[in-house]
Amino acid sequence: MDKQLEMFMTKHIPMIDEQLQQLLTGGYSPISLRESMLYSVKAGGKRIRPLLVLAVLEDFGVQSADALKVASAVELIHTYSLIHDDLPCMDDDDYRRGQLTNHKVFGEATAVLAGDALQTAAFNALASLENTSAEKALALVRLLAEASGAKGMVGGQILDMEGEKASLSLEQLEEVHLHKTGALLSFCIEAGAILAGANENQIAQLRSYARNIGLAFQIKDDILDVTATTEQLGKPANSDTDSEKSTYPSLLGLEGARLQLEKYHTNAIECLSFLPSDKSYLALFADYIVQREL
Amino acid sequence: MDKQLEMFMTKHIPMIDEQLQQLLTGGYSPISLRESMLYSVKAGGKRIRPLLVLAVLEDFGVQSADALKVASAVELIHTYSLIHDDLPCMDDDDYRRGQLTNHKVFGEATAVLAGDALQTAAFNALASLENTSAEKALALVRLLAEASGAKGMVGGQILDMEGEKASLSLEQLEEVHLHKTGALLSFCIEAGAILAGANENQIAQLRSYARNIGLAFQIKDDILDVTATTEQLGKPANSDTDSEKSTYPSLLGLEGARLQLEKYHTNAIECLSFLPSDKSYLALFADYIVQREL
Repeated sequence: MDKQLEMFMTKHIPMIDEQLQQLLTGGYSPISLRESMLYSVKAGGKRIRPLLVLAVLEDFGVQSADALKVASAVELIHTYSLIHDDLPCMDDDDYRRGQLTNHKVFGEATAVLAGDALQTAAFNALASLENTSAEKALALVRLLAEASGAKGMVGGQILDMEGEKASLSLEQLEEVHLHKTGALLSFCIEAGAILAGANENQIAQLRSYARNIGLAFQIKDDILDVTATTEQLGKPANSDTDSEKSTYPSLLGLEGARLQLEKYHTNAIECLSFLPSDKSYLALFADYIVQREL
Repeated sequence: MDKQLEMFMTKHIPMIDEQLQQLLTGGYSPISLRESMLYSVKAGGKRIRPLLVLAVLEDFGVQSADALKVASAVELIHTYSLIHDDLPCMDDDDYRRGQLTNHKVFGEATAVLAGDALQTAAFNALASLENTSAEKALALVRLLAEASGAKGMVGGQILDMEGEKASLSLEQLEEVHLHKTGALLSFCIEAGAILAGANENQIAQLRSYARNIGLAFQIKDDILDVTATTEQLGKPANSDTDSEKSTYPSLLGLEGARLQLEKYHTNAIECLSFLPSDKSYLALFADYIVQREL
């Protein structure tokens, strides 16, 4: 990984973790529920989404005292979706990132409710910003709701489920990903841009960047599922192949998928041409997404 | 039922239903998801929560073009909680209000996601008010999140689940209900008060009213579970007794529960003394809650 990006991550991940902890421990809530929520939030992962929010601000050279809270709100949404996704009635996964899934530890009922409360906590976080105008904060609530609800992430999960029963065209596959993972990634970028005070033109460019890295992220996931080992992934490798799910490699072949990945990567970088520095953090993230090994 | 209240309900329920429909059909989302969301939202029920929001405004003699949207947002939260509550891993109910529960019709995975997306839609509704200041709208988002999340409704559901395994004291039972159902009812009243421009003192009185009708509502539910027939309830009667769950009648006896109900009713009415009319809609609702037969 690029040294500059690695330093950025090493610096910010503990701050994100601390903010997440703070958002979930203030005030009274039943201990078992809080433990279940914290378990999955602490299970970690790469914190790509919150880091992207922070990267936008960094690239604009703008500081916002609320950036960490907004960044963490996205991670709460992401975490809730993983908990529900892992449930027996959904993907029925026992492990996630090498750890037992939430319902294996706390039981299904608590896992459902922990997911529910994490979603609520995300909106609570956005409604409790202290250094952002009410207009901007409300715009963030609206954008997060659009990105994560029936027209965004949750809609994408339904499309994904339905897609498992059929063989999808490339267009249909991208439709799934643009909703299931792309919408929330786009929120990260747009939220960062709003906090940074970006203009409409810049926001449009950044949306296009987000769309491209979102698709690149998914292609890379599909490729890794074919090429990485179970140990590297922390979940069974080739799980997509086993289920005969449509993926980029299954539709385009492994080499075709890699070419497509490079295309989206190039597109993403081009969208950043308006930024002063030619090695922006957003560009480094685009590089990281295509180069990562897990 | 009181004629004045009946007319109020007959007038407003179709408006609430139409607003709910509108909130869930704008823009693109997968058809199966939308159908699942609409199925439970249309399954109806008494619309007590949205009607309470509107009743506050009526009692203050204030009109708000956003009142229906705020009222419907609460109903979306209530509906999502019912869908998740009915899941096999939670209460495992096949019927709700005499109709098949969501997961019996659409499958568990879709039911989980429909609940998730209904929660999101509620926050989206509050973030999309057109005639309310951003400050007020953001306060509503924050209050709804507090009322419905880990410290409110969802926390109450956890307390309720844990309570089923133990015999509760009256204080513990009230703690469950103040969270599980009371928090969202309080939101209705406070949201109406905010839209009506009530002052701090009035809001404090109304919060106390809400607390009292919330507990009254639950005692009445418990009493009806003992005294009503399965047909009247649309779900198996005596379901609480069968599960040996702590209830007001089990702790206080049926007569003791009725006395307690009357106490909360009286308290609720007293909180409304600041209102000009001595037969306010909120007072009529308090009467209705203790007198209803289902």
